[in-house]
Amino acid sequence: MATAGKVIKCKAAVAWEPNKPLVIEEIEVAPPQANEVRIKIVATAVCHTDLHHLFECVKKEGFPIVLGHEAAGIVESVGPGVTEFQPGDKVIPLSTPQCGKCRFCKNPKSNQCEEGWTSRNVEVLALPDSRFTCKGKKVLQYLRTSTFSEYTVMDQIALAKIDPDAPLDKVCLLGCGVCTGFGAAVNTAKVEPGSTCAVFGLGAVGLAAVMGCKFAGAKRIFAIDINPKKFEKAKVFGATDCVNPKDYDKPISKVLAEMTNGGVDFSLECIGNVDVMRTALESCVEGWGVSVIVGWTDFADFAARPVQLIAGRTWKGSLVGGFKCKDGVPQLVKAYMDKKVKLDEFITHTMTLDKINDAIGLMKRGECIRTVLKPQ
Amino acid sequence: MATAGKVIKCKAAVAWEPNKPLVIEEIEVAPPQANEVRIKIVATAVCHTDLHHLFECVKKEGFPIVLGHEAAGIVESVGPGVTEFQPGDKVIPLSTPQCGKCRFCKNPKSNQCEEGWTSRNVEVLALPDSRFTCKGKKVLQYLRTSTFSEYTVMDQIALAKIDPDAPLDKVCLLGCGVCTGFGAAVNTAKVEPGSTCAVFGLGAVGLAAVMGCKFAGAKRIFAIDINPKKFEKAKVFGATDCVNPKDYDKPISKVLAEMTNGGVDFSLECIGNVDVMRTALESCVEGWGVSVIVGWTDFADFAARPVQLIAGRTWKGSLVGGFKCKDGVPQLVKAYMDKKVKLDEFITHTMTLDKINDAIGLMKRGECIRTVLKPQ
Repeated sequence: MATAGKVIKCKAAVAWEPNKPLVIEEIEVAPPQANEVRIKIVATAVCHTDLHHLFECVKKEGFPIVLGHEAAGIVESVGPGVTEFQPGDKVIPLSTPQCGKCRFCKNPKSNQCEEGWTSRNVEVLALPDSRFTCKGKKVLQYLRTSTFSEYTVMDQIALAKIDPDAPLDKVCLLGCGVCTGFGAAVNTAKVEPGSTCAVFGLGAVGLAAVMGCKFAGAKRIFAIDINPKKFEKAKVFGATDCVNPKDYDKPISKVLAEMTNGGVDFSLECIGNVDVMRTALESCVEGWGVSVIVGWTDFADFAARPVQLIAGRTWKGSLVGGFKCKDGVPQLVKAYMDKKVKLDEFITHTMTLDKINDAIGLMKRGECIRTVLKPQ
Repeated sequence: MATAGKVIKCKAAVAWEPNKPLVIEEIEVAPPQANEVRIKIVATAVCHTDLHHLFECVKKEGFPIVLGHEAAGIVESVGPGVTEFQPGDKVIPLSTPQCGKCRFCKNPKSNQCEEGWTSRNVEVLALPDSRFTCKGKKVLQYLRTSTFSEYTVMDQIALAKIDPDAPLDKVCLLGCGVCTGFGAAVNTAKVEPGSTCAVFGLGAVGLAAVMGCKFAGAKRIFAIDINPKKFEKAKVFGATDCVNPKDYDKPISKVLAEMTNGGVDFSLECIGNVDVMRTALESCVEGWGVSVIVGWTDFADFAARPVQLIAGRTWKGSLVGGFKCKDGVPQLVKAYMDKKVKLDEFITHTMTLDKINDAIGLMKRGECIRTVLKPQ
């Protein structure tokens, strides 16, 4: 392409500082370096994790930055040493890489690549190095993805090549939220056919977890939220029972225990609230109940009494649904195209990138499931 | 036998009230009722759980009581409806029953019988009903076992028939502590050949966990205690590295991470200390580390940051080592007789029942592993 090897000037939504609206700016995107791929972003959704960086986990050294990590695009050019991708390939950026070489990648039990964030323990979730500049300043790349931009540069170990027929404005959701919830049920909890499940929190991740429970053959799926407006959608994804804890004057774990002869077989916390994590564990049946922490928070400890585990429960956590994403995301794209998983139903709003602050507002107020933004 | 159907008068160690020495008294043991078995206790060991009832979890309604639950004996007589046992059978009382009929007993994943304590949630761990009286007063049966007595009466669902050639003064240890630690490694953690393990706390349960790790084929077993006197014994049971946290000026989880390229594959907390439970979790490698809570406490919550699980660790708990005990304990007796598991090495002291307060003192001061008491 004509742009290969050159700096691209394009639009991006820059977060100059915490707790402020993003600003649409013209940025410079440098050409890909060794093992890197430059991508034209076709569609990007807003995920809670972006808001976390902007409003909650506010660290000065994490700004200015371009947020966004749930997206799909087309390869514009590749750097030296890249053989797996070529211009025109349809791709999904991955916030969790799969280097294929480390002991985690080589072990079927884990998707925690040594090149990933949990191993690197990078507090601001951005490397010091970046391919973005704006007004003469370096702009960080959030999660090394930065998809709130017309163009971005990814490491090839964090990029999945997908079916060339895939609609990018739908499959972009597989870059994070849907993958996370669906996989937490299927891969981490390992929901069994005929089982009972409870999903706490019915945002995109929770709804995807409901879908995962149904996909795995659960016979009864409790969808739990304090906002009853979420229930209609939950039924679309497979919920059999919708429960609002506000409708009861006793703990929801007791309500579920009464409805299920002692508790559900599997529970998934999809909020990031440590009190709900405890409730989710306590909602599991003793003997074999498995509870999975899917929601993220780094501000507090989760806790329970030892007897809750000694009585036979298991507590797990899930990162991007336990998928080794370079392998798993293309399979999920195929599952969508084969109509085995739903994506369209998550999308409540579609906008252009310059409306990003509206999209962030919708998410903050819980008025959307997913808003898909089109940069161009 | 001449005593069948009659009240037996015999010696027992009665705990009349919390925090006081036990008193050797003459008690009356009623004949077994329907589905019950009366047993002559041949050997009984002292376990921390007995001390827990006496000194820590002190509830007035839990007294007077006869403690003791780790024992072996011989059937004296059986009540109506008992066909599985007959006088002269060698048996081990079980604090966790196996009714064989409930959904837990029928499910291979669980040993939490619906007739057991976790399901019944009996706070004092004694039923209101008892076969013991002393000086005209009802005396409770701790854990429905009460083995600090020459005779006791058990429900047949909580009694394991064992090899008639088994030495009762050794296999009595399989009634609780050794079974618990060994099974926590083998059944609950499911320690794998070639793996790395860490065991926190080197009492009988911890030493049995070390033995379980070795039995399962672990290549490196870290035995951790703040009392270095425990290390020699730990090596006997298979520890490859003995670590005293007091020897380091950084957290032991970091020390272990450095010694193992990021943490152990399996860790077991065998103390009942919630801070150590957290340390044990954090000592596991991310990606696939499994930590098992074996030690018991009901006074505090265990806790950790969500990322510790999201990074791929699993937290479990173990009750009597995950064994369905009516099936599992006889198999362990066989394993001992086949020299596949050690028991003699746990026994540091042997006494008569009337020295029980000395035995309790040894345990309180951490000066014994197991003291075996012979009532007669």
